[in-house]
Amino acid sequence: MDWIAAARAGNPRAVARLITQVENDAASAPGIVRALYADTGRAHVVGITGPPGSGKSSLVNELAKRFRQHDRRVGIVAVDPSSPFTGGALLGDRVRMRDLAGDTGIFVRSMASRGSLGGLARSTAAAVKVLDAAGYDLILIETVGAGQAEVDIATAAHTVVVLEAPGMGDDVQSIKAGILEIADILVVNKADRPGASRAAKSLEMMLHLGLETDTASDRAHHGADAAPSPADDGRLPAAGWATPVLQTVATTGEGMAALADAIERHAAHLTATGQRAIRDWERSRDEVEHLLRDLFMDQLRAAVPATERTRLIADVAERRLDPYSAAERLFASASDTFKRER
Amino acid sequence: MDWIAAARAGNPRAVARLITQVENDAASAPGIVRALYADTGRAHVVGITGPPGSGKSSLVNELAKRFRQHDRRVGIVAVDPSSPFTGGALLGDRVRMRDLAGDTGIFVRSMASRGSLGGLARSTAAAVKVLDAAGYDLILIETVGAGQAEVDIATAAHTVVVLEAPGMGDDVQSIKAGILEIADILVVNKADRPGASRAAKSLEMMLHLGLETDTASDRAHHGADAAPSPADDGRLPAAGWATPVLQTVATTGEGMAALADAIERHAAHLTATGQRAIRDWERSRDEVEHLLRDLFMDQLRAAVPATERTRLIADVAERRLDPYSAAERLFASASDTFKRER
Repeated sequence: MDWIAAARAGNPRAVARLITQVENDAASAPGIVRALYADTGRAHVVGITGPPGSGKSSLVNELAKRFRQHDRRVGIVAVDPSSPFTGGALLGDRVRMRDLAGDTGIFVRSMASRGSLGGLARSTAAAVKVLDAAGYDLILIETVGAGQAEVDIATAAHTVVVLEAPGMGDDVQSIKAGILEIADILVVNKADRPGASRAAKSLEMMLHLGLETDTASDRAHHGADAAPSPADDGRLPAAGWATPVLQTVATTGEGMAALADAIERHAAHLTATGQRAIRDWERSRDEVEHLLRDLFMDQLRAAVPATERTRLIADVAERRLDPYSAAERLFASASDTFKRER
Repeated sequence: MDWIAAARAGNPRAVARLITQVENDAASAPGIVRALYADTGRAHVVGITGPPGSGKSSLVNELAKRFRQHDRRVGIVAVDPSSPFTGGALLGDRVRMRDLAGDTGIFVRSMASRGSLGGLARSTAAAVKVLDAAGYDLILIETVGAGQAEVDIATAAHTVVVLEAPGMGDDVQSIKAGILEIADILVVNKADRPGASRAAKSLEMMLHLGLETDTASDRAHHGADAAPSPADDGRLPAAGWATPVLQTVATTGEGMAALADAIERHAAHLTATGQRAIRDWERSRDEVEHLLRDLFMDQLRAAVPATERTRLIADVAERRLDPYSAAERLFASASDTFKRER
């Protein structure tokens, strides 16, 4: 069977098989992505993130059902960056997702980290491309926790939804580094609990403060940074979009229509203002840059003998040579080889 | 005044000035690191991490005082990756650190992210090198939160201490992705609160499970990964070291002597087994690789006209070209230029 052709035709078994392949064997991703890439770029990708206990899975399930009512095909990628032996949440997700499984217009897939966050980010990105090429209209990426993984989903998603729940510790500290800045929509879930309005107010206040102080200092810092790595590229909120703060109770459906509507409005806003094209361009730039860096390291490893690399690194470890000079020497050595080969 | 020479002689004003310089202007770091690098490598670097509310700052203060009693010079770098407008914790740290300020054997510095996690990691690494060259025997890096920032400190630290406090939500989920794996010492702080023994037990259980299932699957995954980026390189726990789970009450000093002792024992263990040299070697390798990747991107930007880069990325964004092929073409184009130049 030609799994690529079958996936492109929307066959869920082929989609599942290709995603398993990229998850189990990173080396298979390039071939699959190359083959499917021309068919991608149609789906609207939504990242949904929030701390454990904020009710992400229920909310994602409810959201998927709402979109199904409007006849949209929905792909769900539930990403769990916990280590293998703390993977309880993952199993929980699978059980909860079961009530969606009868509907062929919904595809659900959980992905665990197996110890490498970078590997997880790559296999998630590849899974999204497979779903996109298979014709799913909306792709919901659900991530647990708060940290770099959430910043990473922002670069993979068109719309980022950040969840909170009332009474999850300090109102302010529960929103972690860079998370508020990447939100296109903020949601206080479990809004039937005490403290929901206060949590929503505090988020609105933080948003307001952020709009005043954030952008200028970010820009200044980036300007000073000679060679920012792609991960540093903080995505700015969409211009002309006022980040809404919504309250939901996913388990009863309260506020879910408003959330689905906000996502559709954000998608329309991105398209109407040309910002969707800009985000696609930025994502492509970051992806190509990542691949280039990896390609260069591969070529360098092939070009410079391991003995030379090991010796230079030992010089750095034993403080005979500083790391900048070592990098320069290795680079010069590699470029020489590129030259001789041609 | 020659600030480099003064810092090398241990002058705290020079140390403060150089750290401010690397924090404010990333471009100044290479010059400073090159000048000081030969004098680094003597300090023992301890990373201390845990969620907000686990009492990190009090614990770090107490720890610094213990080490001072043994006449060790202590540098503290308190890293706050929160965004600028949620920087309350940072100010709190500064206030709490004030009671250490009279002692010239202790140097305290808070560092905030200003919007770029990658930039923060780089300036923290440079600050550690400045303190190391200035003769501080122990350097304590304190980081808030749980996520990539914590994994990053592991590569900067010889000993990683992970803090928990009783009753911080789910016992299991409060230890985030990859955090348990990087811990050399686990601490349940605020151990006078209810649930402390249960939290310690649950950590011990997780450690035990981890030892059985962790390494094999990690290794398998890494093996399949053709070109792991440095961030993927999960540091394995020191062989022959049984990660202790300690209980402390930093505010009363309870258990603090045992913690200071565990850190000294871990340092001695690393040295005695040759693992300190291995960790230094790995850190040097990662640092050189990071610098090499940045250097390559700089050279590529100089070698390939912006119009060509922009056109290729637009081709990717508009799905005329897949990202792997774009990376290959850019790489070929850059290598050609390297060739012509020589």
